Amino acid sequence: MPTLYYSPHTRSSRVIAQLMLIGKLDQVEVVTVDVVRHDGSGRHDPSNPHPEGKVPYLVTDDGTGIRESAAIMMYLDELFGQPLSPAIGAPGRGAYLSWMAYSGGVLEPVLVAAFAGLDHPAIIETFRGMGELSAVLEQGAQKGPFLLGAELSVADILLASPFQWAPHLLPDSPAIKAWVDRVDSRLDGAAIAAYEASAMAQLTAQETA
Amino acid sequence: MPTLYYSPHTRSSRVIAQLMLIGKLDQVEVVTVDVVRHDGSGRHDPSNPHPEGKVPYLVTDDGTGIRESAAIMMYLDELFGQPLSPAIGAPGRGAYLSWMAYSGGVLEPVLVAAFAGLDHPAIIETFRGMGELSAVLEQGAQKGPFLLGAELSVADILLASPFQWAPHLLPDSPAIKAWVDRVDSRLDGAAIAAYEASAMAQLTAQETA
Ligand SMILES: N[C@@H](CCC(=O)N[C@@H](CS)C(=O)NCC(=O)O)C(=O)O
Ligand SMILES: N[C@@H](CCC(=O)N[C@@H](CS)C(=O)NCC(=O)O)C(=O)O
Repeated sequence: MPTLYYSPHTRSSRVIAQLMLIGKLDQVEVVTVDVVRHDGSGRHDPSNPHPEGKVPYLVTDDGTGIRESAAIMMYLDELFGQPLSPAIGAPGRGAYLSWMAYSGGVLEPVLVAAFAGLDHPAIIETFRGMGELSAVLEQGAQKGPFLLGAELSVADILLASPFQWAPHLLPDSPAIKAWVDRVDSRLDGAAIAAYEASAMAQLTAQETA
Repeated sequence: MPTLYYSPHTRSSRVIAQLMLIGKLDQVEVVTVDVVRHDGSGRHDPSNPHPEGKVPYLVTDDGTGIRESAAIMMYLDELFGQPLSPAIGAPGRGAYLSWMAYSGGVLEPVLVAAFAGLDHPAIIETFRGMGELSAVLEQGAQKGPFLLGAELSVADILLASPFQWAPHLLPDSPAIKAWVDRVDSRLDGAAIAAYEASAMAQLTAQETA
């Protein structure tokens, strides 16, 4: 059974959302760990094998560590027969790979820079800014209902997730908002919230123990 | 036939290197375009369909645009039967996905920040710095000879490429240097250089026409 290192209300929450949606959460061992949070709370948890103490992190049956949300989500989808992604050679495969790479390679850096108020020529040159991000997402959302067309995929769960946590970063675009809502409505928000609350209680109990 | 938008001496050069290595350069239509370069030369080329005028960009037979080097290189390797990547479910698959996502999601932002002398808490918090990058690459290089073990993969071509263009960013690690050299020695440097020189001459001729 693969082991997922997870911490509530972090980028690892989207992996829980994915596993819940495909009904495979019981086929992954989830280890709840602490992480240093943006507000300075939390701590580098020695039980987390991620080289930089981050989450998510996945360790496979043969002991391979997989880092980066996109890679972990692709791997898990493949492990469970690709319920949420196009097979190699199938229509939509190219768009899927493109969105998955865009997530960590452009969307995250642009959102992090916007969030931090960081405006630097090297950032703009390499990743561009919120205007370009918005144009790209709008084009994807408009084709709709999901980024690959008719079917929700791992790409929707991954790319919509930052806007679920930081709605103020959502571009001012009705099409993008409607797409984020469509993704939300496919996820079991109540079950995810309950899971996160219980994990958070467990973490707090550990720390005061 | 898919169409690759390429510009000499850019991040798109690694896609040419990949296609040459697997003997498939003649099965992709390569369109040489101009791009705005770091030194301010070049221009946004209207014939490049990439949403932000960047390279590489791949347009598939069904008209899908694929952006981001990692996605393009994965897609092309899949298109040609995965000569340079593990099949889904095969050993090394998880490590492959992890390295491919690490490339755009961590390695590029860290190198860009180092190159630009950009030192900002949001960058460090999200991507960490050259020390962590060096530790991760060293671990991958030491297992060797290649990142996935015995066989060279698309991940080696992608992750070694920044150090071929910017050797001064190469971490001061004999293991990493030896790995970059091993990757180099598998590529046909002379053929790539000749290809790039001819593309550059074509671009210059276009611009003075
Ligand atoms: N690109 C990575 C980012 C992972 C990441 O930064 N996770 C945060 C939680 S949202 C973390 O673990 N922070 C703790 C730390 O940086 O020490 C991914 O998506 O997997
Ligand atoms: N993460 C992208 C980066 C692409 C990129 O920034 N390419 C540069 C060339 S090295 C470019 O096209 N620059 C022109 C511009 O930004 O206008 C990838 O690897 O595909």
